[in-house]
Amino acid sequence: MLITEVNKMRFKEFIRLFGNVIENCPLVAAAVWSDLPVRNLESLQTSIEKFVDQLSSAGKVGMLRCLPDLAGRLAAAGQMSDDSKLEQKAAGLDDLTPSEKSQINSLNKRYKDKFGFPFVICARENKKDAILKGLAQRLNNEKDQEIRIGVSEVKKICWLRLTRIVSQRSSL
Amino acid sequence: MLITEVNKMRFKEFIRLFGNVIENCPLVAAAVWSDLPVRNLESLQTSIEKFVDQLSSAGKVGMLRCLPDLAGRLAAAGQMSDDSKLEQKAAGLDDLTPSEKSQINSLNKRYKDKFGFPFVICARENKKDAILKGLAQRLNNEKDQEIRIGVSEVKKICWLRLTRIVSQRSSL
Repeated sequence: MLITEVNKMRFKEFIRLFGNVIENCPLVAAAVWSDLPVRNLESLQTSIEKFVDQLSSAGKVGMLRCLPDLAGRLAAAGQMSDDSKLEQKAAGLDDLTPSEKSQINSLNKRYKDKFGFPFVICARENKKDAILKGLAQRLNNEKDQEIRIGVSEVKKICWLRLTRIVSQRSSL
Repeated sequence: MLITEVNKMRFKEFIRLFGNVIENCPLVAAAVWSDLPVRNLESLQTSIEKFVDQLSSAGKVGMLRCLPDLAGRLAAAGQMSDDSKLEQKAAGLDDLTPSEKSQINSLNKRYKDKFGFPFVICARENKKDAILKGLAQRLNNEKDQEIRIGVSEVKKICWLRLTRIVSQRSSL
């Protein structure tokens, strides 16, 4: 798909394709549709990041809460979006030993209890060992720091989704 | 349902019940969940309004675009959320003559073409004649004015939905 095709998209088509680049937050895609036409996909990503950065702290935390959490992902793979499933598989999270699963579930629960939002990591970029290590390390952070890290992971996930959507559709 | 019950709600339950008070924008409910416990339902509404007011102009327009438009509502009643269907029925919009329908569709199209977002009106409070009149009048407004009016109508819709949800569930 060419950026010129994205630029011509009507609102509904744009939301259908890009509404979930920030999981369960079609409001973000709905807001940046106003920025069309854009020069390239990077510009679209920049618009999205700008919108996300402008959210209040409660808005950022709300956005993080709208993502499926790691434990939920492991327990109920069937309920995840197609995007999440692919990302999980790429990270090796669909193939954990029972001991790895229970370790992740326990760390993940501690994370949620401490911060009040799920642990977010761009799973395609982080194989399972890195995720386990990341969970253990990030548990020691302060809340503000974790909001910042979570938001930056959401942006990475968004970029991977944008590029995947555009590359998979060679033409409209 | 008592406010004390709302205050005890876990995130998922809260989103399941209140995720659509701003249509298709669960991010808003996800953000205000942090404000629990609240004193009463009015306080919850205040939190939601504060979040909405803090959105950038693009965010507000995005939120308006996430609402089903009047013409879409008339054409495809089956695809609307239960909340929207009830509101529509209350406004007498499920019982229009062909001539009323075509008048609304034509005004509504002009509205969307002019402003780039759908005409939003709190349908429960406005019977069909008021809606037709409102559409014709508001078409003359400036864009900024219509963003303000649309946002304030979204807040009214939200309040009606909040009170309906809470009153319909006498107990959890």
